[in-house]
Amino acid sequence: MEAEAKAEAVKRLKYIEGHLAGIRKMVEEDKYCVDVLKQTFAVRRAIQKLETQLLQGHLQTCVVEGIKEGHEGHVLQELLELYSLADKR
Amino acid sequence: MEAEAKAEAVKRLKYIEGHLAGIRKMVEEDKYCVDVLKQTFAVRRAIQKLETQLLQGHLQTCVVEGIKEGHEGHVLQELLELYSLADKR
Amino acid sequence: MEAEAKAEAVKRLKYIEGHLAGIRKMVEEDKYCVDVLKQTFAVRRAIQKLETQLLQGHLQTCVVEGIKEGHEGHVLQELLELYSLADKR
Amino acid sequence: MEAEAKAEAVKRLKYIEGHLAGIRKMVEEDKYCVDVLKQTFAVRRAIQKLETQLLQGHLQTCVVEGIKEGHEGHVLQELLELYSLADKR
Repeated sequence: MEAEAKAEAVKRLKYIEGHLAGIRKMVEEDKYCVDVLKQTFAVRRAIQKLETQLLQGHLQTCVVEGIKEGHEGHVLQELLELYSLADKR
Repeated sequence: MEAEAKAEAVKRLKYIEGHLAGIRKMVEEDKYCVDVLKQTFAVRRAIQKLETQLLQGHLQTCVVEGIKEGHEGHVLQELLELYSLADKR
Repeated sequence: MEAEAKAEAVKRLKYIEGHLAGIRKMVEEDKYCVDVLKQTFAVRRAIQKLETQLLQGHLQTCVVEGIKEGHEGHVLQELLELYSLADKR
Repeated sequence: MEAEAKAEAVKRLKYIEGHLAGIRKMVEEDKYCVDVLKQTFAVRRAIQKLETQLLQGHLQTCVVEGIKEGHEGHVLQELLELYSLADKR
């Protein structure tokens, strides 16, 4: 991953960790369940945005290189597996 | 939420925070993107399991009480909103 | 289900069946895969909207009645199962 | 798409159309909402399997060719858009 994309991903992950710690505090303080659930949904959306960023980096580097070097079978199998896993999340 | 369910939710949240910190370390150490993505999928699945537990508690307490006390309009509107938000995550 | 909601659900289902027949024609005529996939995504979104409508009817009738009549255990178990199945779709 | 994959996709689509027609009949005959919803979930899962098949074909043909011919920018942008749309479904 390029330095800029890496810094961005780390920043997002730190933010999500903080968000989750806040949710844990909400549970500890007996906040209303519906409000807690809205926050966990928000965390999942944030993780999906991070995944889109990671996938973009993967496509632009490993996938393009792999296909140009003739390893398309392996590269495409992984991509399909990711799509399939993403759907099962 | 009951004491036991609350302790369980807090435990799950701590575990997920640790998992995310591990993923951040993977990014910082330039691990393979596909492996990072598999871990973020696992985190989202763990959050969904937590949500199912929270929703179960919500249904068994607030929803049942709200309906028995005649506040069904409000209670059902919230439930529907949760399903709808869950689908958009 | 009330007559109006039922008519609405049947209308949506007919529309979705027509949409799918159109997608099948796209495949038969060798349309570009990406365009076909965008249409199957649209169909899934349309089915989700139908599900929200069906769920709303279910909550307003069976769930409210079931809880008021004291069958909350069964009613809530079903709701939780639906949520869980919806997430695995 | 290759002839075999195309025939398979058309067959799946016909099957899903039949499934939806059956669900419409369930609604018309006032079947229990929960049973109807379980069937609409099954239809969405069937559509997702079809999508995986379509995506596999797209990766193996258009994506590989596009990248080898130097059109990687366009090809990857489309792939990313598909992932993103799939997540919003």
